[in-house]
Amino acid sequence: MRGATLATLRSMQVPDALRPTHRLLLGPGPSPVPPSVLTALGLPTIGHLDPAFLRVMDEIRAMLHALMGAGTGGRTTPISATGSAGMETCVVNLLERGSRALIVRAGVFGTRMAEVAERAGAEVTTFDVPWGEAFEVGALEEAVGDARFDLVGVVHAETSTGVLQPLEGLSDFAHQRGALLLVDAVTSLGGVPVEVERHGIDALYSGTQKCLSCPPGLSPVHVSARALERIANRRTKVQSWYLDLSLIEGYWGGERAYHHTAPINMLFGLHEALRLAFEEGVEARYARHARVAAALWSGLEALDLAPRVALEHRLAPLTTLAVPDGVDEAALRRQLLDEHDLEIGGGLGPMKGTTWRIGLMGHGATEESVVRCLTALGAVLDRDARAAVDAATRALQ
Amino acid sequence: MRGATLATLRSMQVPDALRPTHRLLLGPGPSPVPPSVLTALGLPTIGHLDPAFLRVMDEIRAMLHALMGAGTGGRTTPISATGSAGMETCVVNLLERGSRALIVRAGVFGTRMAEVAERAGAEVTTFDVPWGEAFEVGALEEAVGDARFDLVGVVHAETSTGVLQPLEGLSDFAHQRGALLLVDAVTSLGGVPVEVERHGIDALYSGTQKCLSCPPGLSPVHVSARALERIANRRTKVQSWYLDLSLIEGYWGGERAYHHTAPINMLFGLHEALRLAFEEGVEARYARHARVAAALWSGLEALDLAPRVALEHRLAPLTTLAVPDGVDEAALRRQLLDEHDLEIGGGLGPMKGTTWRIGLMGHGATEESVVRCLTALGAVLDRDARAAVDAATRALQ
Repeated sequence: MRGATLATLRSMQVPDALRPTHRLLLGPGPSPVPPSVLTALGLPTIGHLDPAFLRVMDEIRAMLHALMGAGTGGRTTPISATGSAGMETCVVNLLERGSRALIVRAGVFGTRMAEVAERAGAEVTTFDVPWGEAFEVGALEEAVGDARFDLVGVVHAETSTGVLQPLEGLSDFAHQRGALLLVDAVTSLGGVPVEVERHGIDALYSGTQKCLSCPPGLSPVHVSARALERIANRRTKVQSWYLDLSLIEGYWGGERAYHHTAPINMLFGLHEALRLAFEEGVEARYARHARVAAALWSGLEALDLAPRVALEHRLAPLTTLAVPDGVDEAALRRQLLDEHDLEIGGGLGPMKGTTWRIGLMGHGATEESVVRCLTALGAVLDRDARAAVDAATRALQ
Repeated sequence: MRGATLATLRSMQVPDALRPTHRLLLGPGPSPVPPSVLTALGLPTIGHLDPAFLRVMDEIRAMLHALMGAGTGGRTTPISATGSAGMETCVVNLLERGSRALIVRAGVFGTRMAEVAERAGAEVTTFDVPWGEAFEVGALEEAVGDARFDLVGVVHAETSTGVLQPLEGLSDFAHQRGALLLVDAVTSLGGVPVEVERHGIDALYSGTQKCLSCPPGLSPVHVSARALERIANRRTKVQSWYLDLSLIEGYWGGERAYHHTAPINMLFGLHEALRLAFEEGVEARYARHARVAAALWSGLEALDLAPRVALEHRLAPLTTLAVPDGVDEAALRRQLLDEHDLEIGGGLGPMKGTTWRIGLMGHGATEESVVRCLTALGAVLDRDARAAVDAATRALQ
């Protein structure tokens, strides 16, 4: 090290150690992380082939598999990267150059899935749904007729729009056309029922920083027996070495062959987050998400704030609402952060500037979150927070 | 949730909460993580667009850039996945279908780089070096003559063999042939000098779980101004959406456009790990790694254990040594773990079964580690640990 570089290093002002910043995270994720998950993250690091760690891996797989309602023959693995990498994992393992994919675009994440599939060399047909709406299988059938595909991709819970897409009938639609069914469950897993086997889902990915209330950094991925067969019969290698599920299985499965070094401490955190979900009981957890979301919606109505999604397709863990006319939404979110230590999200894509996103996910899906959110919104919008909190409280009774 | 799935969930035995397992990590990584890094990992999660977090990101970039000895015009970013994803990031951004790459294979990681480049659609020429040896630029010149390439890839510190490859002359070699120079610095960054500007390196990746002593989960990546120009002039999109550096820069750079959700808590940990490196002083840190490695080598000699790499190319943070004849190396490593809470690594690829790998990396590069390692090796091999510790101690004086 010499010359300019050494001088830079020597003169460098070492930043101060980080101090905790306390926010109530009611945006589209990350969600609030429970203390015991933070404690697990900070457990002493051990080796990624240590027998003690291999047990942790096995327990994580079993819990994720059960939480997804996955059947026998499939495999569930947390990919060592964030949710978008889970999407890419499913796409690049199930598609190859020249494959045909039908992707439903009803928001940012369906749009992203189509983009990822194109980059994998697939011929992509898109089916566009107005943002904020769900679609019916009949409409898909009408649009594509008998065309055959290798993959049909849909988003279960669109984090950009707040729509919960019903999945009934989609696997029949896909399988009749020779396709596998891929589902994005980033914002649904752990907050609303995800039922891989019942819905005939062939591949599904999620993230840890939404309804699981673990920090971002891992992406749980499930592939069914049918998807594994497809992978085994590929003509070409998976274009991504890092996301190649067969290589990853060599490490996570019985063989324990070195592939990459797993993110040990993140997996400690995920283990604890999953444990908490099962300790609570998954049905009780879904009921809690539904109950507090309904309370939020009552309160928002009292504040005269309009949800963007019709009640029947509204996603409990993530509510989108219209920013009132004349409000600088970014400035107001900054005010919520600075004055109330409260984070909510702005809109994405065409919803930027006109939409807020309020998440009540995992550890954040509580009555207290609803009250703090309504109180802060009332304060910054100068509306009657008291009435909103009363309305929410009544809804909870 | 119904039928078999619901029954599974209801009957599922919730695993116990994790308890700390204390190991002295002297394998090829992860390395021991300092308490303040573990504390940082467990700080309350905040939003990935929170102004408080954006400051953390900026400080991490500045520290990584300085630690790499990188010049102006380039960009340094921790990729949201482990070291192998950093390799893939560099490869898929700098190569496209039909590009020509020359990759030096002198161990597992050069071999992996060639594989990743092939999956990116490049025409790959390999230059093979016997495992455990370094190569000279002259030999490369002789092998490929005036052939032109788009990329020349080498491993600085081969984690599989324990060789530190000198980098002098490689950028001239690459640039004269129209190629960019890509360097794997996974096991060197933070433990031996990494000098991007001085060595004319165009792209470099590392991992956090080696000499930085942060848990695995992030991959610091640098691309030079020349590499950025190459990326700007690509004919095709980067095949990976998740690892597309232009999209990632939209988030890490001034625009702060949403790409993926950064692994917040992992980045808290990396911030602290980098801070510790600069508080110690990077030159003092390199000297510490060299000093304790020399002590280990003296002790190993006293134990009659033979290093695999000639002294002049031996990598201080990671020592490879020959397993004595007749020893079941895996059983012995298990004994070290069970009886001494000590982890060392086995060999990879052709070195499996015949090689041990001992890491003295980051927070683990201490006199205490050397003494514990020699004592434990002496015990399980039934050799004179006392003499080995004495030899090591003398070397430290």
